[in-house]
Amino acid sequence: MSAFIVAIAGPSGSGKSLFAQTLREEVSRDAPDVGLVHIREDSYYRDQTDLSLAEREKVNYDHPKAIEQDLLAEHLNRLRAGEAVQAPVYDYAVHTRSDETERLEPAPLIIVEGILLLTNAALREAFDVCFFMDTPLDICLLRRIDRDVRERGRTLESVLRQYEDSVRPMYHEFIAPSARHADMLITRGGRNRVALEIVRGHLLALQMGVARR
Amino acid sequence: MSAFIVAIAGPSGSGKSLFAQTLREEVSRDAPDVGLVHIREDSYYRDQTDLSLAEREKVNYDHPKAIEQDLLAEHLNRLRAGEAVQAPVYDYAVHTRSDETERLEPAPLIIVEGILLLTNAALREAFDVCFFMDTPLDICLLRRIDRDVRERGRTLESVLRQYEDSVRPMYHEFIAPSARHADMLITRGGRNRVALEIVRGHLLALQMGVARR
Repeated sequence: MSAFIVAIAGPSGSGKSLFAQTLREEVSRDAPDVGLVHIREDSYYRDQTDLSLAEREKVNYDHPKAIEQDLLAEHLNRLRAGEAVQAPVYDYAVHTRSDETERLEPAPLIIVEGILLLTNAALREAFDVCFFMDTPLDICLLRRIDRDVRERGRTLESVLRQYEDSVRPMYHEFIAPSARHADMLITRGGRNRVALEIVRGHLLALQMGVARR
Repeated sequence: MSAFIVAIAGPSGSGKSLFAQTLREEVSRDAPDVGLVHIREDSYYRDQTDLSLAEREKVNYDHPKAIEQDLLAEHLNRLRAGEAVQAPVYDYAVHTRSDETERLEPAPLIIVEGILLLTNAALREAFDVCFFMDTPLDICLLRRIDRDVRERGRTLESVLRQYEDSVRPMYHEFIAPSARHADMLITRGGRNRVALEIVRGHLLALQMGVARR
């Protein structure tokens, strides 16, 4: 049986990573024999070795062009066809790709998370099911401040300016309109226990052959 | 094991009935031994035998007060406790309850559909999972016109006036704010095949004991 590919999209701070990570841990626990690959769209930020560090710092990382979406789609299609791929590894410290890659083996279940996943037709074509985290924007901003200031050591000022200058405009221009491509919207963020049970139950039913794709 | 109760809420014309009906048919086909009860909130419109027919025609049927929500919640809790209930039967021709009732037997799976289900705390407490049909309002209006004019023989004028006078204001006052209580929103209406597979897969996994409630 070919891979089942789940997309988890939605704005920055909406709980995508927590939802994907919890799903991954629980499915791995309940069905340890089922191989599972977890891919972050962020890993596919473009290679920028041709730009200076100062130029790289000016790039709008919330725009779809910042991500090599076609490469991600190609990798998903190759994984689905049973081939291993060499996924890029991004180095945030210098805003470009690392020399390393990560080998991803084909697996029956692939979970992909990212803010811009549903903006690209080739990606949407690759997904079997598309979820969108429908978290209120003020909660997303709160989570983003928590994460970037407290966990990543950024200044509050830089987080707020980036939010106003690129995160928010790109959300309204690209991410919000892409939600209409989702099959289901998930409310209340990454700790939505009922939604986790539903998606987990469906994935287990798929592996047992009692649900269809 | 006590019943698992699924709510399917959302505006008039959003595809609730089609989604609930398809789910019911497919689960019954795949798990014929699992008893399933399908309840429509509409059946719980208030008894209005104390009002004249002219007075009944003036009632706002899109307001939560038009529905005996506490009786529906009580019936759900009694079904969950393993008791049969006598559900009311509504007579649309005379805008009040019929003298008949319908006996509902307790069952492992109960699907409830209605526009105002998530506006009531006792009802929300009774549901194990709450879905909301997130269908665009213009599509809902189109479906409502199709149904009321073509299938129910109403005049276009009366459908449009009711839409402006009560359907739309009550949607914005009660239904839209209640969506935040949903666990997941379903896009694209009652024919959303992916969402049907996910919910069906989860319900089958529950019956097989591989998913939790």
